[in-house]
Amino acid sequence: MTAKTTSKARKKTAKSARLTVDSSAGSSARRGVKLTAAPRNAFYAQSGGVTAVINASAAGVIETAARYPRAIGKVYAGRHGIVGALHEDLIDVFKESKATIAGLRHTPSGAFGSARFKLKGLEQNRAEYERLIEVFEAHNIGYFFYNGGNDSMDTAHKVAQMGESLGYPITCIGVPKTVDNDLPYTDCCPGFGSVAKYVAVSTLEASLDVASMAKTSTKVFVLEVMGRHAGWIAAAAGLAGRGRDEPPHVILFPEIAFDRQAFLERVKQSVDRCGYCVVVVSEGTHDAQGQFLADAGTRDAFGHTQLGGVAPVVANMVREAHGYKFHWAVADYLQRAARHVASKVDVDQAYAMGKAAVELAIGGHNAVMPTVVRKSDKPYRWTVGQVPLAKVANVEKKVPRDFITADGFGITEKCRRYLAPLIVGEDPPPYKNGLPVYVRVKGVPVKKKLGPFKV
Amino acid sequence: MTAKTTSKARKKTAKSARLTVDSSAGSSARRGVKLTAAPRNAFYAQSGGVTAVINASAAGVIETAARYPRAIGKVYAGRHGIVGALHEDLIDVFKESKATIAGLRHTPSGAFGSARFKLKGLEQNRAEYERLIEVFEAHNIGYFFYNGGNDSMDTAHKVAQMGESLGYPITCIGVPKTVDNDLPYTDCCPGFGSVAKYVAVSTLEASLDVASMAKTSTKVFVLEVMGRHAGWIAAAAGLAGRGRDEPPHVILFPEIAFDRQAFLERVKQSVDRCGYCVVVVSEGTHDAQGQFLADAGTRDAFGHTQLGGVAPVVANMVREAHGYKFHWAVADYLQRAARHVASKVDVDQAYAMGKAAVELAIGGHNAVMPTVVRKSDKPYRWTVGQVPLAKVANVEKKVPRDFITADGFGITEKCRRYLAPLIVGEDPPPYKNGLPVYVRVKGVPVKKKLGPFKV
Repeated sequence: MTAKTTSKARKKTAKSARLTVDSSAGSSARRGVKLTAAPRNAFYAQSGGVTAVINASAAGVIETAARYPRAIGKVYAGRHGIVGALHEDLIDVFKESKATIAGLRHTPSGAFGSARFKLKGLEQNRAEYERLIEVFEAHNIGYFFYNGGNDSMDTAHKVAQMGESLGYPITCIGVPKTVDNDLPYTDCCPGFGSVAKYVAVSTLEASLDVASMAKTSTKVFVLEVMGRHAGWIAAAAGLAGRGRDEPPHVILFPEIAFDRQAFLERVKQSVDRCGYCVVVVSEGTHDAQGQFLADAGTRDAFGHTQLGGVAPVVANMVREAHGYKFHWAVADYLQRAARHVASKVDVDQAYAMGKAAVELAIGGHNAVMPTVVRKSDKPYRWTVGQVPLAKVANVEKKVPRDFITADGFGITEKCRRYLAPLIVGEDPPPYKNGLPVYVRVKGVPVKKKLGPFKV
Repeated sequence: MTAKTTSKARKKTAKSARLTVDSSAGSSARRGVKLTAAPRNAFYAQSGGVTAVINASAAGVIETAARYPRAIGKVYAGRHGIVGALHEDLIDVFKESKATIAGLRHTPSGAFGSARFKLKGLEQNRAEYERLIEVFEAHNIGYFFYNGGNDSMDTAHKVAQMGESLGYPITCIGVPKTVDNDLPYTDCCPGFGSVAKYVAVSTLEASLDVASMAKTSTKVFVLEVMGRHAGWIAAAAGLAGRGRDEPPHVILFPEIAFDRQAFLERVKQSVDRCGYCVVVVSEGTHDAQGQFLADAGTRDAFGHTQLGGVAPVVANMVREAHGYKFHWAVADYLQRAARHVASKVDVDQAYAMGKAAVELAIGGHNAVMPTVVRKSDKPYRWTVGQVPLAKVANVEKKVPRDFITADGFGITEKCRRYLAPLIVGEDPPPYKNGLPVYVRVKGVPVKKKLGPFKV
């Protein structure tokens, strides 16, 4: 499965002043690059919450960029994302060994450091944009590859706008990443397939545990998963079983207003029918008034609210209503860092998105993001498309109502057809002494040419 | 690595009245069995909290028993452990397919159902013992294989005593199992190696996540692991890194009284030195007065204490002291059910313990438990020994003080040498459609011969 730019896209004019593309190259735009100017450097950054496969996208960007030396000189990674660009804290990626770059494919989290940092609009904070240009110019950066989710696509879009409005030639390509799977226009998001697999596998395993304990001990198990606004991750738990009597018996989505009475009745039904009940709850589950359950439940010894954690709130609610013995787990970072149980489809797509980003840039595109385009469910086939950043920025894709059963507690066959292929295939990391061998970058800094950034 | 009974052990007189062993069979006692009576049936039960590999022990018992048809007729599993025996709720294990029994080796949790049920002393509850004998007699049960931890070894020991004092001939062998690793006389416990591997891998992965976020976001990550009285599981997290500056930076053990001030200082030091801090906390961590931190922290909206969960308590403590942004996870059942990342050493030992239990019985031993005997650390070599149940019952093995660093927050090299071999090797289950293929037993019931048990 390789990246293919559409013919419509290929007809777009190259935006970079110093890089022109021979559009006569036909369907293999990426192979038909002819350069009329010296190569420029690329900036790559990781942004927002990291995933088990964001480094696979990094490997895709870096290894592909290395194949275009006439267009791309060096690849500089921002240490801690865009913050690294602002502070001229750049890593010379080509000084890493080939083995390290290849190893990024099986290494979770953000090897170059990520950042939660959203650029304001150009009007609100001109200084930041001027600094970015200053840094980019000082290091001859002509490509901006930004690997992140909704907010990050907004940042990438703003950098592209800045390039236009301030007259600085830069090619901006987003590289999609988010465990939340809430980016629009792409069939799915790299990072999601692996967290989905982790959650489905963990739900399956923990369910077997509760089932074997239920006769004399724990009857209800609650697993809290990520997803503040979109319930994709919780939905993935549904892959662990089929039908009403196989766990998980209850899924709580942020898309469905929490109905305490209906929930408690459903739990009781499951215990009566099956002997136990497994509940998977999105961190973002809230009531009809929009109040998060996680905020409503707990107070510490000093009376302060918000220890966080919706699982204990839900578990306690069940105990108070029915007296069942319970256990609960909060997967938190474990779920999005679990490279050891990554989905092969997800790893492949993450790499493909990084590769496609470079190919789109080389092909003369700007202000776009490569996407996963599903060709068929079964057998699962996908290819690479693209979408303008302007369309992606700040739009959230939630779980559609027809992916959730009428009672609001499970997933439909339609949802299952969508999710099932995304967790397929194993791609375990190498192990040594019982532990995965994850690579660490040396992080050789690029020599600074500017003074410090003053905010 | 196969089970070998020691020559000293072999010289013991066979306890079962109907089964005699030809002790002239030399070192291969298990091959030298000569029977002078009809075979008797075996009862097998799973007890207490289940593990990722307790079913591997079941496979070891069942497959080995099947090789001694002249001694062992059928194997009946108690549905939900000893409770199944009391209620004459028995599963005819030989009616499962060979593939299912073999599949138990890679299936987590208790396939036959476990139970938290501790027999009282013979004086306190004679009715239960008389019922057990009634059931055993009705089904010609001459072997009792009990797969569990401390409490379970106590139960097995009581059944053996009952056999003697009530004149019912039964061979009782314990099969060690506990994620807590707190059984004495055995170098380690089946179940522990896999949870240790899960915790070490998860700590490694989550640490990479926090490290990449720390610059602009989460600085402290707290992972809560099991271990109410013994900190073996928390200790295993220490395998994820080496030295003071590699995560986990702080481990909180039940063996070390919690010192709030020292803890908070240590967290701050880690953040100052490394930019972030990873804390792994045993659920059983308590202060010098013996109060569990988990009990001290949270109240629900109604003012009730004890939602459980020490991780949020610790994380909140850090936030209040230092203001760091935090995340926390509670692994709970996920850690002990995680067969997908089991330790191969652990799986092998679990199977070997089940196998050895049958061989000990066939060899004429009674009221004993097979043990793992470590021959060397590096290369790791182990063999199978045995210990009388009377010695094991109700004794807890805690983490020795010299396995914990002087400051109380880490593991020593001695501890590392002990733990390291136990997580070695991968033994992934088969996968289909992205999920592990775990077997489920049909659970064909043995026809009841008695009336219901009235408590």
